[in-house]
Amino acid sequence: MSNEKEIAVKVVLDSWNSRIKQADEMFGKLTDEQLQKEIAPGRNRAIYLLGHLTAVHDHMLPLLEFEKAAYPQFDEPFLTKPDKAVAELPSAKELRAAWKATNEKLAAHYAKLKTDDWFTRHTSVSPEDFVKEPHRNKLNIVLGRTGHLASHIGQLALIK
Amino acid sequence: MSNEKEIAVKVVLDSWNSRIKQADEMFGKLTDEQLQKEIAPGRNRAIYLLGHLTAVHDHMLPLLEFEKAAYPQFDEPFLTKPDKAVAELPSAKELRAAWKATNEKLAAHYAKLKTDDWFTRHTSVSPEDFVKEPHRNKLNIVLGRTGHLASHIGQLALIK
Repeated sequence: MSNEKEIAVKVVLDSWNSRIKQADEMFGKLTDEQLQKEIAPGRNRAIYLLGHLTAVHDHMLPLLEFEKAAYPQFDEPFLTKPDKAVAELPSAKELRAAWKATNEKLAAHYAKLKTDDWFTRHTSVSPEDFVKEPHRNKLNIVLGRTGHLASHIGQLALIK
Repeated sequence: MSNEKEIAVKVVLDSWNSRIKQADEMFGKLTDEQLQKEIAPGRNRAIYLLGHLTAVHDHMLPLLEFEKAAYPQFDEPFLTKPDKAVAELPSAKELRAAWKATNEKLAAHYAKLKTDDWFTRHTSVSPEDFVKEPHRNKLNIVLGRTGHLASHIGQLALIK
């Protein structure tokens, strides 16, 4: 039997993977036209959520010390500004490709981490603070982003 | 510094606690009238989500070997049947109290568990299967239910 540290990491990564799979399926089922629909009247469009989730996941790459973020051009339309504030968004095709590429990069990096690496600090906490707050580790980032993804999946499920 | 097993448990419980707090605040802000609103046209009403989340959390009590579920009467209106299929739901007052009581019970039980207890099996996996699948532990249940809660929080945020 594996040890409990390994099991804890597996539990968190399984949860991430199953949410990514679920989101993939949901975005996959939506046509480019449906991506233009709002999740509820006056609320974000599905295409905004696709860009938003891609941007958030892209920023996990440096946060987890993997590599640089690849889409800084997504920050303004999908992170700092709300939906419909930017006149022209990237195309659905471009966003779908970026979403897929980003999650594949994360998966490839996850696969290379050893169990103990998951318990090392993420880059937005200083080494000094990490000594006092050792829970601010890489595993925590994945867990938090899984919850973030889950909350938007709940919204995407409303698109008809 | 605490060991990594303890840290992993803390990370998962912190995530649960922060989502419970967020949901508490959201339900707390909604008036009884607003609870009757749909999260999106033709979709679940907020009061259904309140009952649904309460029922799901109530069932965590036996699943985690804590105690019996307290609200079997919520199963039909909030788990087996969709919203609007049952003519009369419990009152908002009753549901608010049950939601609070259930999460308080869970919190009290969580506080009594030792780190290693979180890595023991939950009651829907047999001892034989658990030997082969040691990730099907109590921590996994809390993590899964945190994701479930997050997805409905994403929906509750749409209520105006």
